[in-house]
Amino acid sequence: MKKFMDEDFLLTTETAKRLFDYAKALPIYDYHCHLSPKEIYEDKKYNSITEVWLGGDHYKWRFMRSMGVDEKYITGDASPWEKFLSYAKALEYAIGNPLYHWSHLELQRYFGIYETLGEKTAKDIWDRANAIITGGDFSARRLIEKSNVELIGTTDDPCDSLEYHKLIREDKSFKTVVVPTFRPDNAISIEKPGFADYVSRLEEAADMKIACFGCFKKALAKRIDFFSQVGARVSDHSFLTVPYTEADEDTVAEIFDKGRRGENLSKTEIDAFKTACMVFLGEEYAKRGWVMQLHMGPIRNNNSKMFSSIGADTGFDSIGDGVCAEKLSAYLDALNKKDMLPKTILYTLNPTWNYVLGTMLGNFQGGGIKGKIQFGSAWWFCDHIDGMTEQMKVLGNLGALAAFVGMLTDSRSFLSYPRHEYFRRILCRIIGEWAENGEFTDDEAVLRKIVEDISYYNAKNYFGI
Amino acid sequence: MKKFMDEDFLLTTETAKRLFDYAKALPIYDYHCHLSPKEIYEDKKYNSITEVWLGGDHYKWRFMRSMGVDEKYITGDASPWEKFLSYAKALEYAIGNPLYHWSHLELQRYFGIYETLGEKTAKDIWDRANAIITGGDFSARRLIEKSNVELIGTTDDPCDSLEYHKLIREDKSFKTVVVPTFRPDNAISIEKPGFADYVSRLEEAADMKIACFGCFKKALAKRIDFFSQVGARVSDHSFLTVPYTEADEDTVAEIFDKGRRGENLSKTEIDAFKTACMVFLGEEYAKRGWVMQLHMGPIRNNNSKMFSSIGADTGFDSIGDGVCAEKLSAYLDALNKKDMLPKTILYTLNPTWNYVLGTMLGNFQGGGIKGKIQFGSAWWFCDHIDGMTEQMKVLGNLGALAAFVGMLTDSRSFLSYPRHEYFRRILCRIIGEWAENGEFTDDEAVLRKIVEDISYYNAKNYFGI
Amino acid sequence: MKKFMDEDFLLTTETAKRLFDYAKALPIYDYHCHLSPKEIYEDKKYNSITEVWLGGDHYKWRFMRSMGVDEKYITGDASPWEKFLSYAKALEYAIGNPLYHWSHLELQRYFGIYETLGEKTAKDIWDRANAIITGGDFSARRLIEKSNVELIGTTDDPCDSLEYHKLIREDKSFKTVVVPTFRPDNAISIEKPGFADYVSRLEEAADMKIACFGCFKKALAKRIDFFSQVGARVSDHSFLTVPYTEADEDTVAEIFDKGRRGENLSKTEIDAFKTACMVFLGEEYAKRGWVMQLHMGPIRNNNSKMFSSIGADTGFDSIGDGVCAEKLSAYLDALNKKDMLPKTILYTLNPTWNYVLGTMLGNFQGGGIKGKIQFGSAWWFCDHIDGMTEQMKVLGNLGALAAFVGMLTDSRSFLSYPRHEYFRRILCRIIGEWAENGEFTDDEAVLRKIVEDISYYNAKNYFGI
Repeated sequence: MKKFMDEDFLLTTETAKRLFDYAKALPIYDYHCHLSPKEIYEDKKYNSITEVWLGGDHYKWRFMRSMGVDEKYITGDASPWEKFLSYAKALEYAIGNPLYHWSHLELQRYFGIYETLGEKTAKDIWDRANAIITGGDFSARRLIEKSNVELIGTTDDPCDSLEYHKLIREDKSFKTVVVPTFRPDNAISIEKPGFADYVSRLEEAADMKIACFGCFKKALAKRIDFFSQVGARVSDHSFLTVPYTEADEDTVAEIFDKGRRGENLSKTEIDAFKTACMVFLGEEYAKRGWVMQLHMGPIRNNNSKMFSSIGADTGFDSIGDGVCAEKLSAYLDALNKKDMLPKTILYTLNPTWNYVLGTMLGNFQGGGIKGKIQFGSAWWFCDHIDGMTEQMKVLGNLGALAAFVGMLTDSRSFLSYPRHEYFRRILCRIIGEWAENGEFTDDEAVLRKIVEDISYYNAKNYFGI
Repeated sequence: MKKFMDEDFLLTTETAKRLFDYAKALPIYDYHCHLSPKEIYEDKKYNSITEVWLGGDHYKWRFMRSMGVDEKYITGDASPWEKFLSYAKALEYAIGNPLYHWSHLELQRYFGIYETLGEKTAKDIWDRANAIITGGDFSARRLIEKSNVELIGTTDDPCDSLEYHKLIREDKSFKTVVVPTFRPDNAISIEKPGFADYVSRLEEAADMKIACFGCFKKALAKRIDFFSQVGARVSDHSFLTVPYTEADEDTVAEIFDKGRRGENLSKTEIDAFKTACMVFLGEEYAKRGWVMQLHMGPIRNNNSKMFSSIGADTGFDSIGDGVCAEKLSAYLDALNKKDMLPKTILYTLNPTWNYVLGTMLGNFQGGGIKGKIQFGSAWWFCDHIDGMTEQMKVLGNLGALAAFVGMLTDSRSFLSYPRHEYFRRILCRIIGEWAENGEFTDDEAVLRKIVEDISYYNAKNYFGI
Repeated sequence: MKKFMDEDFLLTTETAKRLFDYAKALPIYDYHCHLSPKEIYEDKKYNSITEVWLGGDHYKWRFMRSMGVDEKYITGDASPWEKFLSYAKALEYAIGNPLYHWSHLELQRYFGIYETLGEKTAKDIWDRANAIITGGDFSARRLIEKSNVELIGTTDDPCDSLEYHKLIREDKSFKTVVVPTFRPDNAISIEKPGFADYVSRLEEAADMKIACFGCFKKALAKRIDFFSQVGARVSDHSFLTVPYTEADEDTVAEIFDKGRRGENLSKTEIDAFKTACMVFLGEEYAKRGWVMQLHMGPIRNNNSKMFSSIGADTGFDSIGDGVCAEKLSAYLDALNKKDMLPKTILYTLNPTWNYVLGTMLGNFQGGGIKGKIQFGSAWWFCDHIDGMTEQMKVLGNLGALAAFVGMLTDSRSFLSYPRHEYFRRILCRIIGEWAENGEFTDDEAVLRKIVEDISYYNAKNYFGI
């Protein structure tokens, strides 16, 4: 019987324990998250563990709903204590769910609390955690520093002014590098009601008139350059699946005009427009040596009633299905045949695509770049022991695990950094078992290099920020 | 080396062994099966183990065919002994197949036979089992009682008279509750040749003229009420995937008329009709506080030659594929936005949909109901150690395993109750390993509550029968 | 800590070790590969380990690209030593990839080299391996003989003269049976530019005029007979998914004529033509008692730039997705309802189809043939510990693992036979664990028979060559 989540948590072999000692010493290079640069700049402080833990965490909300907690105690008007207690009661039975590990890792690492949270321990933990939160040494920046975070990549709209990114860069007292990520989902969502307005905002942001699709592309390129100036080297896109529908430039220009006038567009037109945008953007990223991230798989806002009452990102998204192989291949090939395929990370939310993506990589590796095309870390609904283990084993079987850029938090919370620890423990567990089972060399130097590369150095070299 | 299927079968940790002691003491709440209420009422008796084991079990037939047994010894005119011997010879090599465990659990629990069945032991086991079967204490009701079954949910057509259910209810000597389940697959299969006839049968059953789609719905509602009176609180539907195609009431009414006249219908029309029916039925279930079960994934009667010679449910069904996420989401949302989403159980036969369903749940949890939307237990082709383990781990990772309503037999046999034992052993194994690996608390009260809830109490509370 | 890849590699239990002793004593029956009959006949010799290992192995090329090796050192003009060194440096970090096991098994079995290959050991291993390669006892035939290979099934076009197969048959000094496999992919690829030319080549090969679709079928049948004369009993087909689109004979005849004239064909026409061909061919195979292999899942030549520079089979293929269940079922049923379904092996490259195929089998088993329909071994991207384990466990859960015809190399290299050893070790590991966990009998005779059947006897009996 191992002790509950002690220092050897998940480390099932002696080799894993030794390897984790190397891993844990390394800084965190968190190249993709959803933190607020404003909160970082202003060094956000908190009133209670309810605010910091339950204020915006749709994972926790979703779990509470599943356990039968009334919405009043989730996003409603119950008191902070009532909400915390409701979470404590739910978490007590969160067996098999990563929230159980995340929450307890956070209690251990940021509050020194090693008990399990549940109905009986809730009051004591509430008091102790709140004392720390309001004790003067607990803020966004202090959490980042304590977590040894070297780099943070936020997620930002092309029209964003990046004012807080600029301010953070100017503040020499803060050592962590904070860079924006160019995420133009709104810009290419021609099917959405807000598209015309978006183009108008883009005109302002790019300080130019957008008369046609050509101008639209120019405006996006200007914003990419602006993002570059503020430190960005990475883009991000989210899709159910990558569309790929070829159309000539004139057709796409017409579709753009129709979309801007708010006219109805066919599925083919929408996909042709998005394809043209994605090919254009891919080339722009390649020209600048950027990394392109493609996040595939979510279907969002499934619950229209809750969407209209509490909005997006509140715990009502899920995993989509369908095919992705042929269109994704066509897209990557369209860039590659022009020598314009940037470094690219393919993420899937649906693990049934693991083998498709894991082999897609290999089609476009090359140019002497280690892991040019990456299979992104298990993400969101897959960010747990089983999901991360599966993703790494698939990557190992089908490609070069040793070239993997590893973990990112994808989080909206300043307390999520222990997910890197979680990932590193799982990585060391897998590698330790292979070495001790006689399935891989036990040469410590080789094992150490692999673990250190995946934990930190591969990402640092790949992104080059 | 553990002993073959002894009292610690599948219980790999001391924690698992202790937890299973709690689990095994609980009654069986078998909320979904295909037992014959007539056979229960009449307390069916048997002549031989061939009749009870091989009389209608398409799992066993299918396996025998795979091992090269001629159809004569499966559904043909061979003698009962020859059929039993054929099964024994096949089972001897059924490594990795759940039939091996099911069959030996049944031999152990109902016959006190602990040897493995094979060619050499067949004659002795045949004699001993038959002595018990014909010994006077072996019948449908005795098997149910010995198995400590508290509730049985059968599967019934809306036109069914439920006469045997009524008779069973009146018979106070039989303590197990037997309730019908409303399964209107025939009623909504407008594409099938028998549809017009079915509507006529429904007219009779509902004792009303069905002149239009409105009347059709009324007739179904009357039958739901009738089922309610005989104890039903649950419905069941089977689909490859849930159709979802919106159409206005007039269009659906016309499709209904065309279908009744036997006219050809397009795929869109068929789906629109089924959608209208499913939305209507979902609302009716919600009004009455019923549970709706959706079984997704099978493709049936693939072998047309065997279908025309020995009919349906004879071992020629398999797993379908395709997409399910967006239409299922649209269907559940259509009900939910009217506050008319009943408690719902989503089952998939294709485990590649596990992650899609496991996250779909979370979109529609709410109303303060613990596990309002359920991810149904691994079923049919997935009803084995690997399938059940995977389903529970996915549910744990993506939702609230502790809220799970657990196992059902889905069986046509009175000897299938050890599948609940099998499930409980697997459950205790998983939980025991998490606790002993330090991945979950080892607090016995918490572990015990989780195991007891999933084994029995969650289902009892959820169905409320 | 187990020693690295020693004699107990992968054998985690005492039972597994005992079982592997039985397995390793058996010959190799390699019923599907891509070896060159010319190289076998001419007893191909090699200059260096680079030629034998890296000359045509797209698995290794692909991995090197992923690790950032420049194409110069893969398929370019670097020296043999430079290429070998590049591979050594990449392989050193190939953690979790089957190449690591394959390469080290090959070093151990054919070169007596037990060190791990890496940058530091490369020079020494290069020298020792080359000494053996050029030492006079290292050639295609010697490798086959040393590997105890009883049968080799190559893969051949219907127009192939099979001259080397004939010569090998005449050479009584070579004991291994080498048979051709009829692979008519080119013949049915009516959508490809080369179709008309192919039909002309077929006219020559079949020595008859092909005036119409009827003649085309006749010509194919003549070639099947010719293949039979040279020992063939097996066919092979590769698809993303099996097409199934019914059309009457006249329509198909017209499509054939259009295709031959190079006219544009619709997707429906292409599928109708392929369906007619596949039904015809299936019947021809059935008439002759042949086995039909269906390899499903690849998408090929994704990287058009590399395809135009170095051609097909160079490491730019990957796994496709989509649906396969209903069309595959329709195809098998079309043959089965005429009593013309041959013995058939279904292979999937995409493991998400494992459950679909694993249950599809059961729909068409029968005729008293053990494992008439087979679930083919995990293949290509799935040919590793996780993939093979998963395939065997799925087959066990859904069908008759004991009837499985087991492993094949699918390889282009004379050094690939240790993949049979790898498979047998994995098989023994799985079975050993089941037996020692008390999940299956520990009766040694039963276990031994299962292991020996899957390793060798099932294939020998199934193919009957």
